[in-house]
Amino acid sequence: MNHDLQVGAAVVTHPEGHQQSAAARSSTRYFEDFSVGLRFGSREAITVTAERIKSFAAEFDPQPSHLDEHAARETLLGELVASGWHTAAVAMRLIVESDLGLSGQGAGVEIESMQWVRAVRPGDRLRIEGTVTEVRPSHSRADRGLVRFRATAYNQRDEVVLDAGHVIIVRRRGNVASK
Amino acid sequence: MNHDLQVGAAVVTHPEGHQQSAAARSSTRYFEDFSVGLRFGSREAITVTAERIKSFAAEFDPQPSHLDEHAARETLLGELVASGWHTAAVAMRLIVESDLGLSGQGAGVEIESMQWVRAVRPGDRLRIEGTVTEVRPSHSRADRGLVRFRATAYNQRDEVVLDAGHVIIVRRRGNVASK
Repeated sequence: MNHDLQVGAAVVTHPEGHQQSAAARSSTRYFEDFSVGLRFGSREAITVTAERIKSFAAEFDPQPSHLDEHAARETLLGELVASGWHTAAVAMRLIVESDLGLSGQGAGVEIESMQWVRAVRPGDRLRIEGTVTEVRPSHSRADRGLVRFRATAYNQRDEVVLDAGHVIIVRRRGNVASK
Repeated sequence: MNHDLQVGAAVVTHPEGHQQSAAARSSTRYFEDFSVGLRFGSREAITVTAERIKSFAAEFDPQPSHLDEHAARETLLGELVASGWHTAAVAMRLIVESDLGLSGQGAGVEIESMQWVRAVRPGDRLRIEGTVTEVRPSHSRADRGLVRFRATAYNQRDEVVLDAGHVIIVRRRGNVASK
C-alpha cells in the first residue's frame, strides 16, 4: 500500500484518503451521484425492544397488539408486535445510515406501496437492503431530480419484514452554491 | 331531548346512551361493521412541535432538515420540517383515535401509495379524514376480511399534507370466542 501523504487535491491518490473521500461522498450524495442499479445496505442492525414497541405505540399507534403482551393475546395477531409505523420508522433510520447517502440533499415525496410482510417482535434485529430503480431529472425544476429506490427490511433470520418503494427528490450538485 | 334513563338494552333509546353505544361500537369495529363509503375523521387535532420533530428525527430520520433550524437552511427544503415518517406516525394516531374503529381487531398489511404533499412545520395542527373504499372477505381465512381505506391528513389551514391508501385485515365478529 502506498501511504505517501500528500496535500491538497492530491490527497485522493492516498488509499485511505480516497476511502474517506468515497465515504464522505456517499453521505452527501447529490442527484448526479445516483444511478439505476445502485445497491445500498445498512451498516449496522437496529434491535427493536419490547419497551420501545410499547412507548412508540402509546404515542402513535395505541392499539392492544402494540401496547401490552397480555392484551395482545386477544388481538388478531395474538402477541405483542411492533406497530407497522414503528417498523417503517426504524427502516428509515437504517436507510439514512446506509451507504445510499441521503442526508439533507433529498426529500421524500411518495411511497409506492409498502408491505408489512411479517410481524416484528421484541428483540428482532432489523437491517435493510435496497436498490435504486430510476433516476430522472426534473422537467420543471432544474435544481433537482427524481430518484426511485426499493428498500427491504430483514430480521435476524433474514426474513423480509417490510418492503417499500420510495420516491425522493434530490438536489443537483451544481445548485448548492446558487441557493 | 329525552333524558329518561332506562336500563339494559333500552339504554339505546337514551340519546346520550346511544352516543356512547355508537362510540363503543366504533372503537371495536369488526369486519362486518365496515362498508364501502364509510367516512371517518379524527376527533381532535394533534400539534407537531419543533421539539418532537427534532427528537423523532434524532431516533428515526437523522437528516439536517429535521434536526436543527440552522442546519435545515442548507437543505433542499430550506427550513425545519417534520420527517415524513413522523407525519405518517401522527396520521396513524389520528386514524386510531378516529371513529374508524380499529383497536385490536385489525392489522395493517400494506400501504398503497402514500404521498407527502406538503411539508409539516413546527406548530402545525394535523387532523385526518378518510373513506373506506373496499370491503372483501378473505378467501383463504374464514375468520377475517380485507378492508381498504384512504386517509388524508390536513394542517390547520386545511391544506393536504399527507395522503395514503391503507390495506388492513380485520377479524370477523363471530370468531372472537372461537380463538
